[in-house]
Amino acid sequence: MSNTFVVDTSKSKYVRLKPVSISSVKLTDSFWANRIKLMGEVTLPLQYQIMEETGRMDNFRIAAGKIPGEFSGFFFNDTDVYKWIEAVSYFLAINKDEKLDKLVDSVIEEIRDAQDTDGYLDTYFTFSRKQDRWTNLKDMHELYCAGHLFQAAIAHYRVTGKTNFLDIAIRFADHITEVFGPGKREGVPGHPQIEMALVELYRETNDRKYLDLAKFFVDERGKGIIGGGTYHIDHKPFRELDEIVGHAVRSLYLNSGATDLYMEIGDKTLWSALERLWDNLVTKKMYITGTAGARHEGESFGDPYELPNETAYAETCAAIANFMWNYRMLLTSGEGRFADVMELALYNGVLSGISIDGKEYFYVNPLADRGGHRRQRWFACACCPPNVARTITSIPGYMYSISPEGIWVNLYASNVSEFDINGSKVAIEEKTDYPWEGLVEFKVDADSSFSIFLRKPEWSREFSLNVNGERFEPALEKGYMVINRRWQKGDTVTLDLHMRPEFLESHPGVKDNVGRVAIRRGPVVYCVEAEDNPGVDVWDLEIPKDTKISKEYRDTLGGIVAIKGEGYINEPGLWEKLYLPLDEANRLKEGIEFTAIPYYAWANRTPGPMEVWIKTK
Amino acid sequence: MSNTFVVDTSKSKYVRLKPVSISSVKLTDSFWANRIKLMGEVTLPLQYQIMEETGRMDNFRIAAGKIPGEFSGFFFNDTDVYKWIEAVSYFLAINKDEKLDKLVDSVIEEIRDAQDTDGYLDTYFTFSRKQDRWTNLKDMHELYCAGHLFQAAIAHYRVTGKTNFLDIAIRFADHITEVFGPGKREGVPGHPQIEMALVELYRETNDRKYLDLAKFFVDERGKGIIGGGTYHIDHKPFRELDEIVGHAVRSLYLNSGATDLYMEIGDKTLWSALERLWDNLVTKKMYITGTAGARHEGESFGDPYELPNETAYAETCAAIANFMWNYRMLLTSGEGRFADVMELALYNGVLSGISIDGKEYFYVNPLADRGGHRRQRWFACACCPPNVARTITSIPGYMYSISPEGIWVNLYASNVSEFDINGSKVAIEEKTDYPWEGLVEFKVDADSSFSIFLRKPEWSREFSLNVNGERFEPALEKGYMVINRRWQKGDTVTLDLHMRPEFLESHPGVKDNVGRVAIRRGPVVYCVEAEDNPGVDVWDLEIPKDTKISKEYRDTLGGIVAIKGEGYINEPGLWEKLYLPLDEANRLKEGIEFTAIPYYAWANRTPGPMEVWIKTK
Repeated sequence: MSNTFVVDTSKSKYVRLKPVSISSVKLTDSFWANRIKLMGEVTLPLQYQIMEETGRMDNFRIAAGKIPGEFSGFFFNDTDVYKWIEAVSYFLAINKDEKLDKLVDSVIEEIRDAQDTDGYLDTYFTFSRKQDRWTNLKDMHELYCAGHLFQAAIAHYRVTGKTNFLDIAIRFADHITEVFGPGKREGVPGHPQIEMALVELYRETNDRKYLDLAKFFVDERGKGIIGGGTYHIDHKPFRELDEIVGHAVRSLYLNSGATDLYMEIGDKTLWSALERLWDNLVTKKMYITGTAGARHEGESFGDPYELPNETAYAETCAAIANFMWNYRMLLTSGEGRFADVMELALYNGVLSGISIDGKEYFYVNPLADRGGHRRQRWFACACCPPNVARTITSIPGYMYSISPEGIWVNLYASNVSEFDINGSKVAIEEKTDYPWEGLVEFKVDADSSFSIFLRKPEWSREFSLNVNGERFEPALEKGYMVINRRWQKGDTVTLDLHMRPEFLESHPGVKDNVGRVAIRRGPVVYCVEAEDNPGVDVWDLEIPKDTKISKEYRDTLGGIVAIKGEGYINEPGLWEKLYLPLDEANRLKEGIEFTAIPYYAWANRTPGPMEVWIKTK
Repeated sequence: MSNTFVVDTSKSKYVRLKPVSISSVKLTDSFWANRIKLMGEVTLPLQYQIMEETGRMDNFRIAAGKIPGEFSGFFFNDTDVYKWIEAVSYFLAINKDEKLDKLVDSVIEEIRDAQDTDGYLDTYFTFSRKQDRWTNLKDMHELYCAGHLFQAAIAHYRVTGKTNFLDIAIRFADHITEVFGPGKREGVPGHPQIEMALVELYRETNDRKYLDLAKFFVDERGKGIIGGGTYHIDHKPFRELDEIVGHAVRSLYLNSGATDLYMEIGDKTLWSALERLWDNLVTKKMYITGTAGARHEGESFGDPYELPNETAYAETCAAIANFMWNYRMLLTSGEGRFADVMELALYNGVLSGISIDGKEYFYVNPLADRGGHRRQRWFACACCPPNVARTITSIPGYMYSISPEGIWVNLYASNVSEFDINGSKVAIEEKTDYPWEGLVEFKVDADSSFSIFLRKPEWSREFSLNVNGERFEPALEKGYMVINRRWQKGDTVTLDLHMRPEFLESHPGVKDNVGRVAIRRGPVVYCVEAEDNPGVDVWDLEIPKDTKISKEYRDTLGGIVAIKGEGYINEPGLWEKLYLPLDEANRLKEGIEFTAIPYYAWANRTPGPMEVWIKTK
């Protein structure tokens, strides 16, 4: 149980960072540890129950011939089961839970029984549809389903050491490598995903054919094999892409896979494309919540600066895919800017996808709403719920990375961890109230020389750092503060990131945010919601740019820091005219105190209007 | 030539105000007098030439059997000829121009020759289409064409005293009254317009059947005879309307006709509906330029507060129709709020419809543009060009109204005028630099007691008034300052309306104007256009709400007062990120001096971005 990596770059050639095992980081905080606990106690059992109720499990039984019936639901529903296994596996990496462990084994049995003799496994393409296998890669998601199966099987193997699922995955993967590849059948996955899964399977098995196939799928893309459309990111060869377009989740999964591929083969043209796409995303197409996908139509990115709030698509899976991609970019480069995006997505666009009680989900995450957008127990297309679950249960694995130079602290949360740095054992105890406070204290137990790299979050505009009680001015290396020394037992590092609420303004190109500001404190983006602002239509709230804002801890919504400040509302009904001189308009505005809550926590109470980008006065 | 009224309410029972003759007001200003002169010298001759070039005149010759060929263009193209005659007629009311006078007579001959023996006249419904007359009132505009014919014929008769056109109109009108009416054929005009024309024909001929038919057309509407759609304002009986919806020009023409009808029959349920529609328009659906029609789709009003800038439809004809309707509401009530809308529409939404040189037009009048929206010489559907012309040549008629109580000054411009007030002659000389200055001086030559009602424009937030050099505190009656006295030769009235540039804010419901202000000075709404702001993308301009703004006279664009002030632009390329804390964002903003010009004058020079609603900093 020591190598429960989500992405195993331990032996990758073109990387700066190596991962840490999920099981090596014991979270002791109240934010993530509680959420992971909730996954095991509430979310994952409930998701299994719903997968039974909705026929997702029965699809396997039907495919195996164990029960009669027809496949039901969407043709990619198998993936929900796979992602659920992956989520449970990560949970089991840090929590002993025999019930879940056995449940997973029983699910794996159902999957095994549904596998064809040639290794093929997709419960939709059985019986009369068997002849259609691999005939419509553009639309039918078979390779996408396979990829999720591989990821789940690898996670399950890494955590449990059991090969019951990995064997299934390898049989299927071998079948796929026999079908596709140079000199065999050409093909491009309509929904990218398998690329990163194949690279991970290569990392786990050391069998190069999986890596070759991942490269084949990336290389074949953009030749028009699946129609040449931007929706499928098939309009150009990957290495020539310069604008992030098309279906947001597909694009971000593809980028993740291409990054995995780069880490193994070191093709600079891949890295250049990845950097171009990343720049384009974060400077033109990313929501302040770290997610993307402006348009409902085609679940796609919009034009540059097209970032509407009320009609934002911002699929939970897009935030997760962005998190996954940036984690891979971080491992490759060791650059803090990628961890900044991970953190932003995690605390905002990802976390907004699940309710505080762990029972309901958002598929679409608007940044403004009139109160009609509500969380749901499940979806016909249920990609998001198990995707959130596997992200949350794998959180400990992202907190740190290591390298021959030392330990990299990517995200902050209280934890007790142990690592091996160049053969020496290093224990770290971290204490912080992150994401609510910027003070982070480390106790180090070691007896060797190495660096600790502390990420300086983009939001932290000034910081102070003490080592053993003395002020320390660290070198800053690509977003990380570097403390190099010979560490001894009892060494302490105290970092104050000077967290304070601040107003953010949008690039002038973002038309929908003109005359508006957003509130951010640390990594957490805020919103105003009706429940906390009784009698006020929060869409009508106006905040003077120089208003004082302050924080207030509240024991609600799982424990949050709320933001309070002075704002103005328009007296309803007093605006009798459409247009007024400024002074007359101001006379219709009444001063009030407003309360903002973390964006991720909205829509957990009485329905009502919500807004992230608030009008300025 | 003494009764060249546009709307003759001299004998109407349910009105407060009587009109003044166009020929009784001699404009001596540089704004309107120059524009009317331009109509006669440039615009009207050019429009005739284009009507010949585009087959509009030939349609009459073909219908008369004088030349071979087929009807060409849109089925309502006859109306362009009629509106052109109306425009020329008003021009002839104040200018002797034998060439134009003869040209009009020759055009009337062509029209006469195209009239059928039964009086029917529509050059589209001739030959093989003759059998389709009156079969599709919903779509085919026959009654709309008839109405424009009547208005033009009345104007021509009032100005010239010649009956050659009026006779044609009466023959056609008699044919229509034989076809439609209670007990005859039911019918509702798909494009309202004939209602006001029929009432005016009643006023001119004193033949009640025209009034009855106008009432019939208003009463029949909303019964679903033409499909019951909102586009045709047929979804509800007129008297039950409470929201202004549908095709903007149709709606506003219908309201004009209903107001004309009310002035004659005094049906309070009509007036209540008109007041509801007016309130709805000015508080929820009118652009700051006095025009309306938010949507290109259906050339229609939008939802309340749906007033987009770049995609505004704001057809020139809608501004004109709004002007016409409000003139009728003013005549009915004597309330200044209606003259306020007339003035706003006239100086902004109407005037933007024609180029400074009088040769090109806008059909659509956006309030923001990237530079691609350009004026055109003509349109396939050319309702707007002659509509602007007839509005401008009739301007003198709207300046004043009279009533038994005295003289009403509705609009301000230098002029010399003569009226008969209760049998006594009154001469007035008005001097002002309106709309560029708020100082207005009157010299009165009279020898009787009456009131002068000076409109206090809505934009004038304070004013000072002197009578014979002494401060006078007038009573304010529904938007008019009342000066009642025995007037003598040499009496002077000096009104200072304290004109100054000011920023306006939109009702918070207008989403597209959030965080933006518009500049207005007196009745003139301003815009920033590229030409005056070199090196600046005016869409990027930000104005601090407390910036000082000043005026500057410029001898360009026909003579304008420009507005200058301090603003900020974002350094292009410096915004590397999508989201920045306020202080960092402000560091990327460079102070500049901006220049704004009257909105009506935009798109007369080098194409470039333009914006009315400017971002605030």
